[in-house]
This record gives sequence, structure tokens and C-alpha cells, in this order.
Amino acid sequence: NNKLKIFSLNSNEPLAKEVAEEIGIPLGECSVTRFSDGEVQINIEESIRGCDVYVIQSTSNPVNEHLMELLIMIDALKRASARTVNVVKPYYGYARQDRKARSREPITAKLVANILETAGATRVIAIDLHAPQIQGFFDIPIDHLVAEPILTEYFKGKGFSKDELVIVSPDHGGVTRARKMADRMKAPIAIIDKRRPRPNVSEVMNIVGQVEGRTAILIDDIIDTAGTITIAANALIESGAKEVYACCTHPVLSGPAIERIDNSKIKELVVTNTIELSGEKSSPKIKQLSIAKLLADAIIRVFEKKSVSTLFD
Amino acid sequence: NNKLKIFSLNSNEPLAKEVAEEIGIPLGECSVTRFSDGEVQINIEESIRGCDVYVIQSTSNPVNEHLMELLIMIDALKRASARTVNVVKPYYGYARQDRKARSREPITAKLVANILETAGATRVIAIDLHAPQIQGFFDIPIDHLVAEPILTEYFKGKGFSKDELVIVSPDHGGVTRARKMADRMKAPIAIIDKRRPRPNVSEVMNIVGQVEGRTAILIDDIIDTAGTITIAANALIESGAKEVYACCTHPVLSGPAIERIDNSKIKELVVTNTIELSGEKSSPKIKQLSIAKLLADAIIRVFEKKSVSTLFD
Ligand SMILES: Nc1ncnc2c1ncn2[C@@H]1O[C@H](COP(=O)(O)O)[C@@H](O)[C@H]1O
Ligand SMILES: Nc1ncnc2c1ncn2[C@@H]1O[C@H](COP(=O)(O)O)[C@@H](O)[C@H]1O
Repeated sequence: NNKLKIFSLNSNEPLAKEVAEEIGIPLGECSVTRFSDGEVQINIEESIRGCDVYVIQSTSNPVNEHLMELLIMIDALKRASARTVNVVKPYYGYARQDRKARSREPITAKLVANILETAGATRVIAIDLHAPQIQGFFDIPIDHLVAEPILTEYFKGKGFSKDELVIVSPDHGGVTRARKMADRMKAPIAIIDKRRPRPNVSEVMNIVGQVEGRTAILIDDIIDTAGTITIAANALIESGAKEVYACCTHPVLSGPAIERIDNSKIKELVVTNTIELSGEKSSPKIKQLSIAKLLADAIIRVFEKKSVSTLFD
Repeated sequence: NNKLKIFSLNSNEPLAKEVAEEIGIPLGECSVTRFSDGEVQINIEESIRGCDVYVIQSTSNPVNEHLMELLIMIDALKRASARTVNVVKPYYGYARQDRKARSREPITAKLVANILETAGATRVIAIDLHAPQIQGFFDIPIDHLVAEPILTEYFKGKGFSKDELVIVSPDHGGVTRARKMADRMKAPIAIIDKRRPRPNVSEVMNIVGQVEGRTAILIDDIIDTAGTITIAANALIESGAKEVYACCTHPVLSGPAIERIDNSKIKELVVTNTIELSGEKSSPKIKQLSIAKLLADAIIRVFEKKSVSTLFD
């Protein structure tokens, strides 16, 4: 008769609260603060001996603070005799550093996987990893959820007819994702095909597919500085698209992102709450959807030793 | 015919430069910056294939940033085929979280040791670990240097006669350190013996040893908020000490530290440069001594496969 416990660290407490409410249990009591010199201080304020513990933490900005909170919490839980330590990481920071694109680069996404295991994680639940291959960086079980159905449901609610729609990938890497949404919406796809004809010549923005007169929905996994997505939106309008929506799972939105979105041709940007949007990251164009139910379902299924695979697509 | 390379990360570049100059080689070329979203970006700008690489990084405040820089650098060096990856950590952040003092606490000093090894460190060089037992947290070789002789030499230069001196430990934990300095100065020791007679009764400050009419030198490993050391200094003056000097290896100096030192009875605070003192951490009372030669000697001996033990005390 084990017990399920859910703890939140500091990256996204509103989401953790929502997940706990969905499941119908209170969040575990713990305080995650800093000593005077900036070192992480964690006090777990209830016994977790023999429990199945789920720690909800996105390694969003400030990524190094959030990652260290997570590692130290895992260490504390392990030493306090948790039966399992399940890391629920709605946003996986450093996921883009997943290969050596140049000589002597680190592969930080793999380093992160290794140190989570070293700290004592026994399982990981993640959403829309930048590359699905990151699953293979772990030697412990990992459940990889996708948020695209949540984004798709939202757009279905707008009642576009499939003949007026086109789902657009902003680059070559995201075509599979666009294809999935297009299947579910029964719409065609298009691809923004950036190409540099010769070195030191500026990029040519070519659109593969029919967009004229259509409502275009751009889909990506991460929107960070929003350069790619806003340039893509403007190119779509120039090519005759009627209007442009954009969506992504992870709203990183760093640096000039908000300004670029506000000044772009994007009508609405639909994101999820894998990353909490603070005050300065708000814009009237942004609509945030919750993934709390998806996470709650995954946690309950893992806890009850049921398959999570129906949540995969 | 291997090559020795030294790299600096961002915590203490002046010290790293001094060490490289002592050794007579330039610092390795690398850039350690941040992506727009705060993730660490490292580019190693010269080949290190087959080299013995020494990375100099104190995990001082901001500790989590400095620790992640170090882990990611180790990962990059390992993947770039360094022969050995030697971590030179003049200040070991999280060293005080070295045991479970209360239930369900993490042991972060051990976590840090584990993740350094996981990242790929093959050897560690440290100075005045808060507890020497932290050496045992590693399964790779660790050289543990001490800075006390450098502090002692400085005080010897002041020409006090041994009859007017007393070396004081500010708490029970630091008596061994005070004893070492006292031996070298041929002076007696005293101990600040704080005690709480009953719970919820304030501490009594008792001084064990003769301090009246003497010049007292307080010695500690870390001075953080400077509460302990300034209270000790004032207690020494109240007990008739002629004047009070204080010294430590690691000037963490967080929160109210500078204000407390400036307002205390401490005549001079002597520290080393294991931690860089930024502008706001300066005080006319603070004298900073360099450990660059100690580190340079240790690096050369390790590189030449000679014993480092003569640098231990
Ligand atoms: N946090 C980051 N912000 C911007 N670029 C990154 C970041 N992390 C890694 N990268 C780079 O982005 C590239 C991977 O992006 P992608 O082609 O979208 O998979 C790699 O060349 C990385 O060096
Ligand atoms: N960064 C820190 N600042 C203040 N106290 C700490 C810090 N890290 C650990 N501690 C606490 O300090 C105590 C260890 O100090 P000590 O008795 O000097 O070894 C432990 O009870 C820790 O919980």
C-alpha cells in the first residue's frame, strides 16, 4: 500500500498545484530557498519513506538554478528513503544542446540526463523533447508526452473549415510535428524552406506548399527569441495567406521575443504552460493552454502501473 | 610528450591568469557565455586532443551558474579527447552541506562530487575543504591543499613576539586549524566556547584560554555572513585582548558581512583569493593574499607525476 506524493520546486508552482488538484491530493510540504550565499537550501517537511514521489520542475530560465534545485531535491528524497523518485520535467532545458554541431561542443542534454540519474532519479516524464532521441540519453524509463493534441483541440474550437486551413512548419526540422497536426485537422501542410544560396549571401525564404487565401497555423516545439516564427509569419502573409496563427509547446520567449511577436503579423500565439509566463512575458496576442490534465493522467497511470502510451499521440 | 593546458571559466579569471603566469603558459582559448535564454554556451577554441587539461573554477556565488559552467566544460573537454580532465576548485561550494544534520536533508557536497565524476573529471585539486572528509566523497584522486601557511607567513611578517600572541578558534570545529597556526607561530591557542545553557535561553560566550593583554588572531576556513567571527572578535576585546586580527581561506562574505566587519572590533581581516572579491565586497580592513603559487606548484607536480604532499601542510 504505497503512497503517491507530489512536490513542486520553484520553476512552475501554479502548474504543480493544478496537477495536484487534478489528482486530488495536496502538494507535499517542502521549502526550497537559498542560504545567504546563494546555495540552495531544501527542507522536506513530511515523511516520504517508502512513497512514490513525483517532483514537478521545468528547467526553464534561470535554468541552472532550477536544475540544481531538482538535483538536490532528488538527493534529499533518495536519502529520505523514497521508494521511487519520478522527475516530471514539463520543459527540458538544454535540450537543444543534443549533439556536437561543431568541434569541441558539449552535449549538455546528455550531461543533464546523466546527472539526473546519478542524483537518484528512477523515472522521467517529459513533454515534447526538442529531439525524441533524448529519450535514449537515459538508462531509466522515460515517458515522452506530446502536447500537440491540446493545441489542435484549441484550433478545432475555432471552427475553420479544412479547405481554408494550412498547417506550416517554420523549418525543415519540424515537418513531422506539422504533419501530425495536419492529419488531425485534415488539412494540408506547407514548409518554410530557408536556404542560403552561397556563403555570405542572405537567406532566401521559400514557401513549399499552397498558402494563398488560407488561414495558416505555424507549429513549433520551442519559441525562444521568436526570430524564426515571426519571419515565417511575415513571409506567409507576403505569399498571400489570409491570416497567420502560431503555436508551440514551450514558450521560452527570451530576449526580444515579446516585442517581435507584438510587432509581427501573427494574429494569435497559442502556447502551453510547461513554462510559467511571468509578467514581463505577457502579450495580448498570447493564449496559454494547460497541460495539467495530461501530466496528472500520466502520473496516475505510472503510479498505478498502467501504460502511458495512449497519452503519446 | 603530452601537453599541459589551463582553462579558466568565469568565477575567478584573475586567479587563473596568475596561475598560468606562474607556470609560464598562456590560458587556453575558450569562451563561456550564455544563450539568450540563460543556458551556458561553451566554445573551446583550440585543440586539446591528448592534453592534460586543468580547469580553474571556484564554485562561489552564483554557485549554481559556476557549477554548471564547470560540468559543461568537463563534458566538452572529455568529448574533445582530453587525456585527463583535472578540476582545480579553489573554493568548493556546498561544502557545508556535507552531512544530514536534520532529517530529510540532502548531502549536496556528495552530490557535487558525484556529478563532477559523472561529467568526466579525472582528478580534483581543492583547498581547505570545510571538512577533510569530503575527500572521501570522491572515487577519483583528490589533492587537498592548505592555505594556512600563507596566512601564517603574512602574520609572521608583522613581527609580533610569541609572548604577546594568541591564536583563537571561533568555534569548536576549528580548533585543529588554530592549533596548526599556533604551532607554526609558537603561540598558545584559545577557543570561543559558545554554549546554550538551556533551550530558548540565549548563548553564553565563554573564552577558553588566556587572551588578556594579547594580540589575538582568529582563524576560520570560511567567513560567510561574518556573524560568528565579529561576535568572537568583540568577545575577545571584552575579555581584555589588546587587539584582534582575523583570517580565513575563503572570503564568501555574503549578506551583511562587510557591514559587520567594518563595524566590528576586527583590526584587519586577512583572506586569500580562492574567491574573487568584487567591488561591493571590499573594505579597507580586508587584505587579500594570493594562493596562485600554491596552485601552480600543485598543478606542475601533478602534471609531472610528482608528490603533492609537501604542499599539504
Ligand atoms: N539555449 C540555446 N539557445 C540558442 N541556441 C542553442 C541553445 N542551445 C543550443 N543551441 C544551438 O542550437 C542548435 C540546435 O538547434 P536545432 O537545430 O533547432 O536543433 C545547436 O547548434 C546549438 O548549438
Ligand atoms: N550555504 C550555507 N550557508 C549557511 N549554512 C549552511 C550552508 N550550507 C549548509 N549550511 C548549514 O550549515 C551547517 C554546517 O555548518 P558547520 O557546522 O560549520 O559544518 C549545516 O547544518 C548546514 O545545514
